[in-house]
Amino acid sequence: MTPNPDTERSLWRNARLATLDPDIDAPYGALERHALRVEDGRIAAVLPEAGVDVAGFDGKVVDLDGRWVTPGFVDCHTHLVYGGSRAAEWEMRQQGATYQQIAAAGGGIASTVRATRALTEQQLVDAALPRLKALVREGVTCIEVKSGYGLSLDDELKQLRAAHRLAHALPIEVAPTLLAAHAVPPEYAGRADDYIDYVIDTILPAVAGQGLAEAVDVFCESVGFSIEQTRRVFEAARAHGLRVKGHVEQLSKLHGAALVAEFGGLSADHIEYLDDAGVAALAEAGTVAVLLPGAFYFLGETQKPPIDALRKAGVPMAVATDLNPGTSPFASIRLAMNQACVLFNLTPEEALAGVTRCAARALGRGDTHGRLAEGCVADFLVWDVDHPAELAYALGTNPLALRVFRGVAQHIEH
Amino acid sequence: MTPNPDTERSLWRNARLATLDPDIDAPYGALERHALRVEDGRIAAVLPEAGVDVAGFDGKVVDLDGRWVTPGFVDCHTHLVYGGSRAAEWEMRQQGATYQQIAAAGGGIASTVRATRALTEQQLVDAALPRLKALVREGVTCIEVKSGYGLSLDDELKQLRAAHRLAHALPIEVAPTLLAAHAVPPEYAGRADDYIDYVIDTILPAVAGQGLAEAVDVFCESVGFSIEQTRRVFEAARAHGLRVKGHVEQLSKLHGAALVAEFGGLSADHIEYLDDAGVAALAEAGTVAVLLPGAFYFLGETQKPPIDALRKAGVPMAVATDLNPGTSPFASIRLAMNQACVLFNLTPEEALAGVTRCAARALGRGDTHGRLAEGCVADFLVWDVDHPAELAYALGTNPLALRVFRGVAQHIEH
Ligand SMILES: [Zn+2]
Ligand SMILES: [Zn+2]
Repeated sequence: MTPNPDTERSLWRNARLATLDPDIDAPYGALERHALRVEDGRIAAVLPEAGVDVAGFDGKVVDLDGRWVTPGFVDCHTHLVYGGSRAAEWEMRQQGATYQQIAAAGGGIASTVRATRALTEQQLVDAALPRLKALVREGVTCIEVKSGYGLSLDDELKQLRAAHRLAHALPIEVAPTLLAAHAVPPEYAGRADDYIDYVIDTILPAVAGQGLAEAVDVFCESVGFSIEQTRRVFEAARAHGLRVKGHVEQLSKLHGAALVAEFGGLSADHIEYLDDAGVAALAEAGTVAVLLPGAFYFLGETQKPPIDALRKAGVPMAVATDLNPGTSPFASIRLAMNQACVLFNLTPEEALAGVTRCAARALGRGDTHGRLAEGCVADFLVWDVDHPAELAYALGTNPLALRVFRGVAQHIEH
Repeated sequence: MTPNPDTERSLWRNARLATLDPDIDAPYGALERHALRVEDGRIAAVLPEAGVDVAGFDGKVVDLDGRWVTPGFVDCHTHLVYGGSRAAEWEMRQQGATYQQIAAAGGGIASTVRATRALTEQQLVDAALPRLKALVREGVTCIEVKSGYGLSLDDELKQLRAAHRLAHALPIEVAPTLLAAHAVPPEYAGRADDYIDYVIDTILPAVAGQGLAEAVDVFCESVGFSIEQTRRVFEAARAHGLRVKGHVEQLSKLHGAALVAEFGGLSADHIEYLDDAGVAALAEAGTVAVLLPGAFYFLGETQKPPIDALRKAGVPMAVATDLNPGTSPFASIRLAMNQACVLFNLTPEEALAGVTRCAARALGRGDTHGRLAEGCVADFLVWDVDHPAELAYALGTNPLALRVFRGVAQHIEH
């Protein structure tokens, strides 16, 4: 999944680093007048500019002219790969149609499942590419991609293989997640437990055997799968050596976050209805809270996640796009950062940590991604901004000057 | 202000036209399998594809392959030209600072006035260009630009001249508006009436005399100028032959919309607190209601404009970015369309009419802009979408294939 690292050495000097390193006691972990030394696609050293020996350096030197540099963005919750569009269904909703009327017209997640099943692996790649390009252009260097619109062995495998292929189409790292337990497919209508058996006995072993996913996710919700069903999937995931995470407490209080924590899960995602016990469970387990303000916004929700309680308990808060056609049709991580601030009252620094350090941790990459620190992958972004708060503040314009993936720079056209 | 029209004839065939023409009785005023004939930068004819004589046509022929075509977008309310950024001030606010603390730290509109005064005309053009490019890239072909951060004769003239120069820098039409009555500048602190005298006696005549503005706007609000002060400015505008419009009823119910209507104004903008009498006054006067959901969103407001009442009364509803550094730092008209739907419950068709037909009318260009109809300017957009509802639905990706300004096409890089 990792494209060729640059085998040459490079030196990125004269920078203002927003390291997002919690060991550096400054807002944004900022280091003024610093440089990054890169070797074999990794950050080999973070150096004060004064200590840089440019003349004696054996490699490419890039003068960043005092520009701000951040870690590459990590979008840790997406449903990037799917077929079809739900714009016409959304138009019906805006015109006043009820959910029943939309379902009767063939809408809802069932329409995305039909459209995804109808496409080949290559067609799924082609459909996802414009969305992925938009995220790359904004500075995303690592992206989680879930299955969950196939809901059959072949179609879930197809969706996950398409996710893997996207990492070869563009300079980006893909973290694939199996979300077979996203909805009950039509052929199992009224037999959710039987579908969970099928997921556990057939889909999960095949996906694990072929190494197509790093983690297993479940849509645990009053309108999705129950706590008991979720527990069974999590146990199977653990038996196959896969990490777990959950779509939990978005619309109802089923205590799914505590279940994720019980399994030492990577992340509890959405969590609008998370209560104090849930917050404590996440803190205790070291599970990341993933905030998805795009869906909150698009659905017109009013119940907000308990940001103050999460902050006080020291739970890492990630921010992601939740890019999907039904509830968050937004291929923009900077929009998600802005929405996290405006709608959930995060600070711009929390929003930036949410798409770097905390998002990396939500993907089990906390040691190697999401910070500018020795040993981390050399994925970083060079910005034409005066202050890192600009990144969450202004939308429409794109102040990204250079996107560096594994030490290799890509200019961004505006 | 109008760049060279293409003097050649051109034929844009095999299109699906979303004409936004209210005389065509179909959603979006849609005409399937139609063509546009363009001459001298105008739409000379809207033709059924079957009636097109390609072989006999003396000019350039472009096959649009069945793609959707809409009118060019009109952003009818922006504060595009300014100096500085308010990101650091916003960060303070997100960290819990009060308005008093921000004002004490030199923040608020005063900081934008200082930064704008400090820049030359060319520097203001350079500062605005990335924002304008972002809007052009999305399909904006006509944009209103207000002054209001100069607040002195020289600085207001400078801001308006910068607005005019932007129309030479990019293929776009600029509609400049004088908003000298935006705030009381520091040198008139505590003397708002004296400042209004200065606006009326000094700034307005100079701007009118030099032909630098088409219309005059006032920030009529409990925290801005009173109804009486607004009336005086409107009377002076009328005496100079300029149209009027107002920032009204955003934060309080001063009945500013009725005042705009009394003067036959172009538009009443914001109008969150508009009451039934105000709606009736707009309907009676034919004044456009301009919805600015970006500011509503960014400020976390809860009072929404009376959409149902406006709809029932037949008041045209425009949608605009309100692009400005303090309350709507969003250079994206598609974000505004999406927010108008999600936050104010417009339909996607109303949102599209809001940035085309209705926005054109808000700029006094209803006869020539914002529709695909014979005699209108040949400003139109060719889209890679299956349904026009996509334009308000998905963000991040940019499905604009071709942007045509006065008959001249510009490819959009993705
Ligand atoms: Zn999701
Ligand atoms: Zn405004």
